[in-house]
Amino acid sequence: MEKEIHFERAEFDQRVSAVKKEMSKRGIDVILLSEPANGNYLTGYDAYSFYVPQMVMVALDHEEPIWIGRGMDRISALMTTYLADANIRSFPDAYVHSALSPYAYVAEVVKEIVGESARIGIEMAGYYYSARAHADLVEALPEATFIDADLLVNWIRLIKSPAEITLMRQAGQIADAMMQRAIDFIEPGVRECDIAAEVYHQMMKGTPDFGGTYSCAPPHLCVGERALAPHAHFTDKPLAASTIVNLELFGNRLRYQVNLARTIVVGKPSPQYQKLADVVVEGVNAGLGAVRPGVTSEQVHAAFANTLAKHGFEKDSRLGYSIGLGYPPAVGEKTVSLRKGDKTVLQAGMCFHMMSGLWLKNDGITITQSFAVTEDGHEPLSQLARKLFIK
Amino acid sequence: MEKEIHFERAEFDQRVSAVKKEMSKRGIDVILLSEPANGNYLTGYDAYSFYVPQMVMVALDHEEPIWIGRGMDRISALMTTYLADANIRSFPDAYVHSALSPYAYVAEVVKEIVGESARIGIEMAGYYYSARAHADLVEALPEATFIDADLLVNWIRLIKSPAEITLMRQAGQIADAMMQRAIDFIEPGVRECDIAAEVYHQMMKGTPDFGGTYSCAPPHLCVGERALAPHAHFTDKPLAASTIVNLELFGNRLRYQVNLARTIVVGKPSPQYQKLADVVVEGVNAGLGAVRPGVTSEQVHAAFANTLAKHGFEKDSRLGYSIGLGYPPAVGEKTVSLRKGDKTVLQAGMCFHMMSGLWLKNDGITITQSFAVTEDGHEPLSQLARKLFIK
Repeated sequence: MEKEIHFERAEFDQRVSAVKKEMSKRGIDVILLSEPANGNYLTGYDAYSFYVPQMVMVALDHEEPIWIGRGMDRISALMTTYLADANIRSFPDAYVHSALSPYAYVAEVVKEIVGESARIGIEMAGYYYSARAHADLVEALPEATFIDADLLVNWIRLIKSPAEITLMRQAGQIADAMMQRAIDFIEPGVRECDIAAEVYHQMMKGTPDFGGTYSCAPPHLCVGERALAPHAHFTDKPLAASTIVNLELFGNRLRYQVNLARTIVVGKPSPQYQKLADVVVEGVNAGLGAVRPGVTSEQVHAAFANTLAKHGFEKDSRLGYSIGLGYPPAVGEKTVSLRKGDKTVLQAGMCFHMMSGLWLKNDGITITQSFAVTEDGHEPLSQLARKLFIK
Repeated sequence: MEKEIHFERAEFDQRVSAVKKEMSKRGIDVILLSEPANGNYLTGYDAYSFYVPQMVMVALDHEEPIWIGRGMDRISALMTTYLADANIRSFPDAYVHSALSPYAYVAEVVKEIVGESARIGIEMAGYYYSARAHADLVEALPEATFIDADLLVNWIRLIKSPAEITLMRQAGQIADAMMQRAIDFIEPGVRECDIAAEVYHQMMKGTPDFGGTYSCAPPHLCVGERALAPHAHFTDKPLAASTIVNLELFGNRLRYQVNLARTIVVGKPSPQYQKLADVVVEGVNAGLGAVRPGVTSEQVHAAFANTLAKHGFEKDSRLGYSIGLGYPPAVGEKTVSLRKGDKTVLQAGMCFHMMSGLWLKNDGITITQSFAVTEDGHEPLSQLARKLFIK
């Protein structure tokens, strides 16, 4: 069977060793990772199988991580991870959507590898770590101590390796192609769902050199009145002769994702709206200008916010978030936010989406920029012009 | 603002009243629903916003449900639900990915509406009810009693109304168009990601009469060796001159979803493989022939399994699951399974995906059928021929 693994073994080993170091510091013997992105990061595992219970376990005293999942997905683990067969464990299908708990199976693996009274790290706020998962594990491991290790791996993922940055650049190329395709296609009378069709087509097609894949969230295509609603669904209505299209989309390359949003005006923008666009772009440029290693997240936010304030505007949601490896449903890494109060010091290799969208009382506008922090500033991860597009 | 609501108010009222009746039976004063599909079912709410904490609350003594979510999504609640403004509650952005818990906000609403010592139903195994969500609620409501009401609403969703069946039929039309598009496009040398692009394009485009939308899971496009892996990702490799494509896809209309899988052989299938296809189709036909109100789920499974056994085959995973309204990440409703031991009695209005895919040691094949149970049998929800397609 041909393996499909996208990083050197040495890189995986480094990641695992960084996780073990942090576990050790926190007195954790074994960590049970429910977040699919964290499992992928440490083992390479990639399949759309996380909607049934699935975990990656890292034990201080066990060299490789252990993948635990559904029997029918074992073959995906063989194909996409470097793990030895003995470190791929699977439960039978009788555990799926039934009275049996897959977490009782997980508990057996924990007992085998680290014993009954281990100190177990778990991801309390993980999307795929339900209240039931936790209750079942606690019941099956009454001698164990549970420690919230939510985001432990996410924080290690924050700084990307050169190999990861390469994938982020490719994801950015896909995002650019998707947005350009939408801009080319948009005109009065086309149905919103047909714009979405073009965007999705390009998302998968990627470029002639490399393909894309499904993003962590659907594109947000918010038209007309719905331009005020950041996460509204699109409809099958035709575009009016004069309207606003706010499009936030996600290029994805091997699960690495770059976010990109633009506003496309159909018809002629009002002078006030054009002015709003200019202010947002000025704010983004100011924010990007502040990016370099050693600066804090809130300083980047301040550079943006001060520019807006100068023109009498304010953005009440955060200015952005770290991006990278991901699975549905979320588009960010849940660690650093570009906002007041976040004192994270930027380092080269961090990647962010500067989500400079403004949703005011009567207007919504989205002109954003994803970027990587470099040794002496930033590298934009998408190349499309930062401006209002008019059709 | 134009409302986008797809069912009559009377239908929503019926749904809410069915939920209240079941709550009453179980001694639950208030239920906190984290599953986006359950929130949509009872209020109409539709936006891709459930990746941050969001709940729909139903209290026995409060007429309408209450939507609770993020401030920036309030406008989506105004647009897509029938709820009075007072029943749309939102927390500020400072609660997002920060040390503040949105569940403390939820707890305040609970106290206001039903008091501190309510008996609260929660969805313990919900995808969007994390261990942290539960811990935060329990901490904020120390006088309350928590009762696991997981799937309470899912079981009520099991039987679809005529208006819902109409949407399921439309979803099936989209699924058919998607599969036909893939079959037409597939030939040696095309990249897997370009097949995915065609499939996604059609998913959004839908039909000339109505558009589609994003599905709850990406299409499973499993080629060659990966045809053995049910949930493998697709790649950007070109199709070989002779290979197998297993494609499971999902047509989605206003969040109602119909599943459809076919195997497309590039080149000439071996006689054994063609025989396997014939056996699967015979099994599906036997299973469908057994469907009618009054029959149990396991009897449908038995009709399929006995046919396979006659030819010396066995399927070790369940034969299918109920389908309907959904959001990522899952493609089923998590209630009834077509498998041995499931004694659910079929009733008209239930919908299933007969997931007759077989993953044997060396061969994978997927020829499936979604259907609705009718008064005297079944109605297929997709119309594409049940056969092996050869290109």
